Amino acid sequence: MIQTSVLEIPASYLFSDIGKQVAAYQASHPDKRVIRMGIGDVTRPLPRVCIDALHKATDEMASADTLRGYGPDQGYEFLRDAIARNEYQSRGATIYPDEIFVSDGAKSDSANIQELFDVDSIVGVTDPVYPVYVDSNAMAGRLGHYLNGDWTRLVTFPCTEENGFVASPPRKEVSLIYLCFPNNPTGATASASQLKAWVDYALDHRAVILYDAAYRAYITNPDIPRSIYEIEGARECAIEFGSFSKTAGFTGLRCSWTVVPKDLRIDNASLHALWARRQATKFNGTPYIVQRAAEAIYTEEGKAQVERVIGYYMENAARIRGALEALGLTASGGVNAPYVWLKCPDDQSSWAFFDRLLNEAQVIGTPGSGFGACGEGYFRLTAFGSHEDTIEAMDRLRKIL
Amino acid sequence: MIQTSVLEIPASYLFSDIGKQVAAYQASHPDKRVIRMGIGDVTRPLPRVCIDALHKATDEMASADTLRGYGPDQGYEFLRDAIARNEYQSRGATIYPDEIFVSDGAKSDSANIQELFDVDSIVGVTDPVYPVYVDSNAMAGRLGHYLNGDWTRLVTFPCTEENGFVASPPRKEVSLIYLCFPNNPTGATASASQLKAWVDYALDHRAVILYDAAYRAYITNPDIPRSIYEIEGARECAIEFGSFSKTAGFTGLRCSWTVVPKDLRIDNASLHALWARRQATKFNGTPYIVQRAAEAIYTEEGKAQVERVIGYYMENAARIRGALEALGLTASGGVNAPYVWLKCPDDQSSWAFFDRLLNEAQVIGTPGSGFGACGEGYFRLTAFGSHEDTIEAMDRLRKIL
Repeated sequence: MIQTSVLEIPASYLFSDIGKQVAAYQASHPDKRVIRMGIGDVTRPLPRVCIDALHKATDEMASADTLRGYGPDQGYEFLRDAIARNEYQSRGATIYPDEIFVSDGAKSDSANIQELFDVDSIVGVTDPVYPVYVDSNAMAGRLGHYLNGDWTRLVTFPCTEENGFVASPPRKEVSLIYLCFPNNPTGATASASQLKAWVDYALDHRAVILYDAAYRAYITNPDIPRSIYEIEGARECAIEFGSFSKTAGFTGLRCSWTVVPKDLRIDNASLHALWARRQATKFNGTPYIVQRAAEAIYTEEGKAQVERVIGYYMENAARIRGALEALGLTASGGVNAPYVWLKCPDDQSSWAFFDRLLNEAQVIGTPGSGFGACGEGYFRLTAFGSHEDTIEAMDRLRKIL
Repeated sequence: MIQTSVLEIPASYLFSDIGKQVAAYQASHPDKRVIRMGIGDVTRPLPRVCIDALHKATDEMASADTLRGYGPDQGYEFLRDAIARNEYQSRGATIYPDEIFVSDGAKSDSANIQELFDVDSIVGVTDPVYPVYVDSNAMAGRLGHYLNGDWTRLVTFPCTEENGFVASPPRKEVSLIYLCFPNNPTGATASASQLKAWVDYALDHRAVILYDAAYRAYITNPDIPRSIYEIEGARECAIEFGSFSKTAGFTGLRCSWTVVPKDLRIDNASLHALWARRQATKFNGTPYIVQRAAEAIYTEEGKAQVERVIGYYMENAARIRGALEALGLTASGGVNAPYVWLKCPDDQSSWAFFDRLLNEAQVIGTPGSGFGACGEGYFRLTAFGSHEDTIEAMDRLRKIL
């Protein structure tokens, strides 16, 4: 009666493990101030335009004439229009508002999308990888068994120093391909020609690319695609996830979107129609007031405010990467992404380095091995802290490394 | 590659069908004012305490010192405490805050819960039934094939005039049992002894009851259980869904909860642990500001405001049921529930009666057949309109019936 594949998943979750270790350390060292550069949570306040939009929309809920009850399944048109125009059409990517589904988080959608595919589909992910893609497929029974730390039916694309942490399409047959650029955890980005190779693979093999672009707003180099739909052919093979969490500090407010182009057909089925049906059946929409807050970032004032927050975090990113390189460490990311990926010094393991930073510098990062076997020996630091904390964390690292 | 069970589901959705018919009618009759008593959406403004809590929490998001980013997976403790105390402990039901999972909607949770069970589990639902329980299981491939309007592997419990729209446990073996009281669509409630029979069945057969209590706040009779956990043994066999949507007008704000007691073990697995893992992997929490709004309804002031809104809708319910009975129609519900369930006059079919009310009285209800075969010949009217609209709708009905 129980879905055994749900039972088979290792019971813990990376960030819960880290949380427990940090809590234990704090309990035995109450005098030490820990600096958190582990989980990718924002620290800057919401942009003023979002605060104003929330207040205004809240007041609408206080009157019967302007109350909003159940919203449209796919999200309000005002927000879908703004996303289509600002995130896609302005960059030359053809995406229409009715191809956009507003939701409560790219985590939910990237975890739920696998429901459209059968249990025999072959799943491919990069290694290292955001754990949600793997765990959601494992729970559905698509990955076989978990033996010695590996899923028997999962295909992985190793991302290493040698390939600049951007894998090429595999020789093997894969039907569901998860890609994330700018990458979590490595901070790597893919060029147009690298993405084109994946699109070509998908079209040749009738595979579907599930493209997570949650960190797109951190791309500073204008030549790097912000969306898979900047690549020709992607409308026939790719679904894309976007998010307001990192763009505008919505981690606690919850708003995201998923694009399913109408040209995407597999086995003669329209994935747009299937996802529409899935969402209509199993989801009841994102709060109206939150959708108004999201819409606000696309005003001129909103764009300027978002740019300032992103600039703030990217100063941190540059500072982290600079400090690590000055210490002689090998680091990447942090240029078009809010994550810096560093090689642990002295061939230390990821968790040994985690313990060292926690115990000697009270700095928390994320062990690379938590993201996959290729992450072993690496470590992720996030740029989402305050300037003050980031500066102090780098000072502390300088003392111990 | 495509999950064929997702393809097999009839492509439309009851309320979308109704919406389309109404839109077509309005387009050809722009001068007619339609009164909506179909979809169960609220029309009263949010309680003042919720508005105030939203403003206050929004202001917290405007400052780095008080910003809330990612929240706890299960929801904030302040809300889980308030729910445990006010919805359970105050009624003598033993439920602890850590058994409560805050979410974005009882629809999402009641659709997602089936993921914990294998594809061979036998699903049983009442007929008529809220379509989400059926469709979510059908999508997962648990219901077999859709032939002549029926799923080959679905067990249904007929709810008819004869049993007062409350089914008794079946003789057949069923492993997942969906119950909803106060019932959507019939408005029927189950007594403690009726619920006890289901709990006993579940304990005897090691089945799980999935109990939807979204309309609990409308129960006026103090002898009727508001929660399955008022029944002895339910902690070992039942999961319960609760919602702020109908209690406090949150349909556009999105907040709900699910209770998974720690005593609930199946095949030696803790369903609490499995649901915790599911939520941690595939969900990222409900907005902080919305959780603060939900918390506010449990203050003394909040309770009084909620009671006034419920009283408002229940006046409508009494008026609808009274008007129908005065017309000589057979009607039930509307006493401990916001839905009135009426038998279509002259042996009309549900959709024929829908067309008649729309065309002759411009009143929209929901055809009972949309909820299952036993709903054929019945019709659902909701009490969620304004007093003015409800009075006018009954006047219009008096003219044509």
